[in-house]
Amino acid sequence: MHQKDWQLAFFHPQSIAIIGASTKPFKFGSLFLKALLDFKYEGKIYPINPRGQEIQGLRSWVLEEISDPIDLAYITVPAKQVPDELRKCAKKNCQFVIILTAGFKETGEEGTRIEKECAEIAKQYGIRVIGPNCFGVYHPKGGVTLLPGGDFPKEPGSVAMLSQSGGNAVNFVLLGQSEGLRFSTVISYGNAVDLDLPDFLNYLNQDPDTNVIAAYTEGVRDIGKLKLILNDLDKPLVLWKSGLTEDGARAAVSHTGFLSGQREIWKGFFTQFRHKLIQVNSFEELLDTTKALAYLPPLQKGLDYTQRIGVIGGGGGIGIEISDCADLYGLKIPNLEHTTREKLKSLLPEEGTSINNPLDIGNPMYMGDQKKILYTFLEDPNISVLIYDFIVDFVLDLKIMFRVIRNYQAKYNIPVVIILRELLNTANNLALEKKYRKFRDSFHEVSIPVFPSFYRGVRALANYLKYYKNLR
Amino acid sequence: MHQKDWQLAFFHPQSIAIIGASTKPFKFGSLFLKALLDFKYEGKIYPINPRGQEIQGLRSWVLEEISDPIDLAYITVPAKQVPDELRKCAKKNCQFVIILTAGFKETGEEGTRIEKECAEIAKQYGIRVIGPNCFGVYHPKGGVTLLPGGDFPKEPGSVAMLSQSGGNAVNFVLLGQSEGLRFSTVISYGNAVDLDLPDFLNYLNQDPDTNVIAAYTEGVRDIGKLKLILNDLDKPLVLWKSGLTEDGARAAVSHTGFLSGQREIWKGFFTQFRHKLIQVNSFEELLDTTKALAYLPPLQKGLDYTQRIGVIGGGGGIGIEISDCADLYGLKIPNLEHTTREKLKSLLPEEGTSINNPLDIGNPMYMGDQKKILYTFLEDPNISVLIYDFIVDFVLDLKIMFRVIRNYQAKYNIPVVIILRELLNTANNLALEKKYRKFRDSFHEVSIPVFPSFYRGVRALANYLKYYKNLR
Repeated sequence: MHQKDWQLAFFHPQSIAIIGASTKPFKFGSLFLKALLDFKYEGKIYPINPRGQEIQGLRSWVLEEISDPIDLAYITVPAKQVPDELRKCAKKNCQFVIILTAGFKETGEEGTRIEKECAEIAKQYGIRVIGPNCFGVYHPKGGVTLLPGGDFPKEPGSVAMLSQSGGNAVNFVLLGQSEGLRFSTVISYGNAVDLDLPDFLNYLNQDPDTNVIAAYTEGVRDIGKLKLILNDLDKPLVLWKSGLTEDGARAAVSHTGFLSGQREIWKGFFTQFRHKLIQVNSFEELLDTTKALAYLPPLQKGLDYTQRIGVIGGGGGIGIEISDCADLYGLKIPNLEHTTREKLKSLLPEEGTSINNPLDIGNPMYMGDQKKILYTFLEDPNISVLIYDFIVDFVLDLKIMFRVIRNYQAKYNIPVVIILRELLNTANNLALEKKYRKFRDSFHEVSIPVFPSFYRGVRALANYLKYYKNLR
Repeated sequence: MHQKDWQLAFFHPQSIAIIGASTKPFKFGSLFLKALLDFKYEGKIYPINPRGQEIQGLRSWVLEEISDPIDLAYITVPAKQVPDELRKCAKKNCQFVIILTAGFKETGEEGTRIEKECAEIAKQYGIRVIGPNCFGVYHPKGGVTLLPGGDFPKEPGSVAMLSQSGGNAVNFVLLGQSEGLRFSTVISYGNAVDLDLPDFLNYLNQDPDTNVIAAYTEGVRDIGKLKLILNDLDKPLVLWKSGLTEDGARAAVSHTGFLSGQREIWKGFFTQFRHKLIQVNSFEELLDTTKALAYLPPLQKGLDYTQRIGVIGGGGGIGIEISDCADLYGLKIPNLEHTTREKLKSLLPEEGTSINNPLDIGNPMYMGDQKKILYTFLEDPNISVLIYDFIVDFVLDLKIMFRVIRNYQAKYNIPVVIILRELLNTANNLALEKKYRKFRDSFHEVSIPVFPSFYRGVRALANYLKYYKNLR
């Protein structure tokens, strides 16, 4: 089977069989069918059910009786019936299968045995498999979506996401889309009985629609293959390998059955490939770093901007926190030149401000000539990156602030990161929440990433800057 | 001057003079007057302004012409006029002064000189000072509030907060109140020319209204005095000392003029007093840890629950992340006994769940006998603390979940921490946001703390558990 074949079948299937669709609405097969219908998949759908009932308005089928070809089958029946269904797929000449069913290696001995049997059947008949124990594929251009993904955006984008955990895949799309991210391909691939991280990376590296790759893995069967493919990778890869602690490893075994210990191997791996990928350690860091890479301009290989961070905000205590935080992540907030400071002094009131880097323009923010303040600050020869910190509650004119920052970024294309904090005077101030989101969305629309705290913004920025610094 | 005196004057003043109140609404004096009026301060207010105009509906005064006594004066005029105003206060026999004005030590040589002069005048006349470069005092029982604090809760509570940064003090109250916290005393004390952290701690330790103390400091003038007072401290103190990194130290100098370097001294200090206080490293950690201490039940001195954490959640990938995170903060998620696992097996469906610690009850969460599941899990002899993880979007019946957890906690009084994540299917799903906040608030009302991510919840829980473990 050529690589191109599985891409076509999994991402652009003309026909899909759902083995295990039923009239019971909470079965996995039914939930998946519903997601596909909600997503308005345009190909032909065959709910497979031996009882022959109508399911969600569609006629149901017995697989053997379908005369047309089936591009892709989703298997959702209980684990012990999966081997049989795989054989039926082979007989029907359906060579691409996604096994959603859980209950394999991750549950112990019996599950491991069945999983092995499935692997052998797939090999024997040349069936390519995604899963088991997964949520499938979200590929907006091809019109397919994940198990609970009926309401995912139809509009495609340039971020790809690979995840052994279905939950993490779904959450990544949901939270990512509310941060303005759109996706080329998202694959939840569970226990990876056949297709695994290296296969997907190899494809995504060649995929013209993908610019950034995020991945969550609990383990990789063939780490040598992964290394080979990484050597050729020329897109940013943000990789979260979980289970690198003792407790985490134990939890991982019971999730996809991967023994994710082997800490030393992975430690060496991340050191060896620091010029190719970004290691992250949590879901939040994965999402934030992917967002930074997706929105911020690509930098030249080897360019080191980590020591050239300029910070503007309102309120002095804040400057200390951001400085401590930058230090933690290896970023440097350099002093301004004397001439810059003199110029800024003439632009800002003396009271409640502090002329330095971080530049404190007061709280509420001083609303003088924002453009002149920003341009003067960024003309300083020590600064190439801007962090702008807002507390939404205390900004008098959000529109002006947005316009000035956007125009500067559009003109000079430097990395700009916005920290947008909200204080929420009352627990139920939804009007303020709306204002906050609108301001955030307007920045995302012009490709300037927004983070809700220093910690998250500085961490993501540091990951982005170090990626290009280390890139070879 | 006895200690009791300054408490009365600063927290329960019968009359306040605002030196520098003016008809210009954006002057500090006017903003403070407005805050006091909005807060419905019940004592007598004297706006001090030589021009004799009416200010915000109040007659203005010249200080010398007031015949009644003045308990407390706020000075808001520019720095270079402050020494004169202090002398006038002395003459009027007003011995308690809060200097809001900035522009002292933090701005350089001239400011340092003026600050020194103020210190000398205060000493000479026995004037007790809070500030300069601060936002004053919020003390709901006494009816006074911070500079921008007109809308702070009138209702008092048991959390005290001390901060050299006015911004951090304000933000702590605003964010804290939306997390259900209420305050006994909040003091923004800026450059601490007279009253400093040790004085405030000494008072709060004796204050029957205060149960937990949060503090943000950039430096302390007399660290020996601080140590003396800590020896007697018998309430949890959560202390954020900023500026412990190189960049942070530089930013601190230009904020309150404190040379907060001396890293080695502070390092030694925190080691020496780990049995008395909790060191934190950011605003977020300060708030989260204070919340944990305020809501969770006090534990016996020396009791070590750090290795006895039970976790329940939905979705397997999640269990790995929380395990990694627990490991990072020195908490342990132990295995369940065989008998516990057998009992749980009979209560949960096989598919989509994982019987272990963390216990994965599926996603969407399995809605079987929640009570039996929770009680069985917590009967395990290895577990004394519960983390319960929700993704609000995927919980079918929030009310049942709330009731079961609250009833258990009320019966057994064990530490319970809720992680409440939201996915926000659409960027503007304010209905979901409302649901989220309602669920969160209901837990806070029964003193169960809620955190928006593992990272924050586990970190705060670890700080709380280690405090009681180390307490002597």
